[in-house]
Amino acid sequence: MVENSIQLLRAEAKRIRLDMRSGAYDGQTSGMTPGLAQANLAIMPKEYAGDFLRFCNSNRKPCPILGVSDVGDPMLPMCGDDIDIRTDVSRYWLYENGEPVGEVTDLKDHWRDDLVTFAVGCSYSFEEALINAEIPIRNIEMGVTVSMWNTNIQCEGAGPFQTPMVVSMRPMTPAQAIRAIQICSRFPDVHGAPIHFGDPAAIGIEDITKPDYGDAVEIYPGEVPVFWACGVTAQRAVAGAKIPFGIGHKPGHMLITDQLNSQLAVL
Amino acid sequence: MVENSIQLLRAEAKRIRLDMRSGAYDGQTSGMTPGLAQANLAIMPKEYAGDFLRFCNSNRKPCPILGVSDVGDPMLPMCGDDIDIRTDVSRYWLYENGEPVGEVTDLKDHWRDDLVTFAVGCSYSFEEALINAEIPIRNIEMGVTVSMWNTNIQCEGAGPFQTPMVVSMRPMTPAQAIRAIQICSRFPDVHGAPIHFGDPAAIGIEDITKPDYGDAVEIYPGEVPVFWACGVTAQRAVAGAKIPFGIGHKPGHMLITDQLNSQLAVL
Repeated sequence: MVENSIQLLRAEAKRIRLDMRSGAYDGQTSGMTPGLAQANLAIMPKEYAGDFLRFCNSNRKPCPILGVSDVGDPMLPMCGDDIDIRTDVSRYWLYENGEPVGEVTDLKDHWRDDLVTFAVGCSYSFEEALINAEIPIRNIEMGVTVSMWNTNIQCEGAGPFQTPMVVSMRPMTPAQAIRAIQICSRFPDVHGAPIHFGDPAAIGIEDITKPDYGDAVEIYPGEVPVFWACGVTAQRAVAGAKIPFGIGHKPGHMLITDQLNSQLAVL
Repeated sequence: MVENSIQLLRAEAKRIRLDMRSGAYDGQTSGMTPGLAQANLAIMPKEYAGDFLRFCNSNRKPCPILGVSDVGDPMLPMCGDDIDIRTDVSRYWLYENGEPVGEVTDLKDHWRDDLVTFAVGCSYSFEEALINAEIPIRNIEMGVTVSMWNTNIQCEGAGPFQTPMVVSMRPMTPAQAIRAIQICSRFPDVHGAPIHFGDPAAIGIEDITKPDYGDAVEIYPGEVPVFWACGVTAQRAVAGAKIPFGIGHKPGHMLITDQLNSQLAVL
């Protein structure tokens, strides 16, 4: 990408964030600003942020950190220019003691000066890399949400954050899966290489036709299910910890960052 | 590896090649000079060498070229110091019109000034990389030859060289296979990443318990067969071409080169 088109892309990202800030846009972000990373959101009081950071560091495949804020500071400069996390995401979910208690389109009435924001890498980035390599993504072809399951793979615990890993699944031929492993290995900050393929029962998935989150997709003859560590693990960790107060994004309503996916590649 | 140990390793390689040259050693080379690449051998008249080179270039996964000689020159400087290909391999197979016609321990009576030598990368290099990553290799654990099959994957043809791909198989868990794909992707000159995993029938293998070449190995519960493009493809191409005269190594009796496996890594 030439410098000028990168500037245009970031200008588009900023425009969308400002539309979210003003309330002009409150929809999903799938397919927006291709080339730029989108992120999962986890916001919690400082009291729990140290353990959560340790949890993410110990479980980098499901919970790769793209950015962390200063305590009480709603700005997230690590992720982009002029990002005010109180307003620049279209829809937020509020949690109390691990239970969802409401959905809002801004955090103006909920911000506290002890809150810390975490931006966690999202599969949209590697899906884009796969599509650019002509590897078809079934959930995108079908226009549905990717299939996700709880597994029997236990994450490394940290303080109150103790949870099994959540995985997403995309069906592929073995040759496509081998290429996908190569491509995704370049992107450890957005879940990296798959963690499993083939037999779902080997990671505790009982019914491959019934995802725990998202939508079911068809697996064609000659394909195998390929499983990636999923950022929903972070949300499950926060909910499972039953901390008094926490904030996440509404699924599909991600933070649009200024970070190029190509900059996230380690190779 | 420090410079001194590399020198020692190459001195050991040279000592073994000189033992082969003198006739003091005529055995297999498996496990010898770990760290240095070993190579498959294909020697043929100049008349066919152009097509064979084109065949290898078009089918780099089974037939990656580590070295080519000048016409009629028995030395192979691309592969190491003072390698005389007429004597420095322990056992050779002679072919006429595609049929094996004899085994010899040197080529002194068979060398011709129109012969060209090709050294083709060998799986020993990536097996070493996998073992160094604590990925077990069943055929090495069992002390047998790796299982190999003819497939229904057609290589790109070049002149008289027309053959389906031969593959080798190593059983692994999916997590080991994912790591193996990452590791082997660094080594395109020694067959690179696997080309298939899982269902043998998808690449034309009818019975996974009966290899076409080498020995059968057990596949444990929870493992899948993982298939790599195999250098035996080169031998099959030469035999299939039914050229009047050709020379190969006896399987397992490889050319020991001075090339470090770590130097073959593209990353």
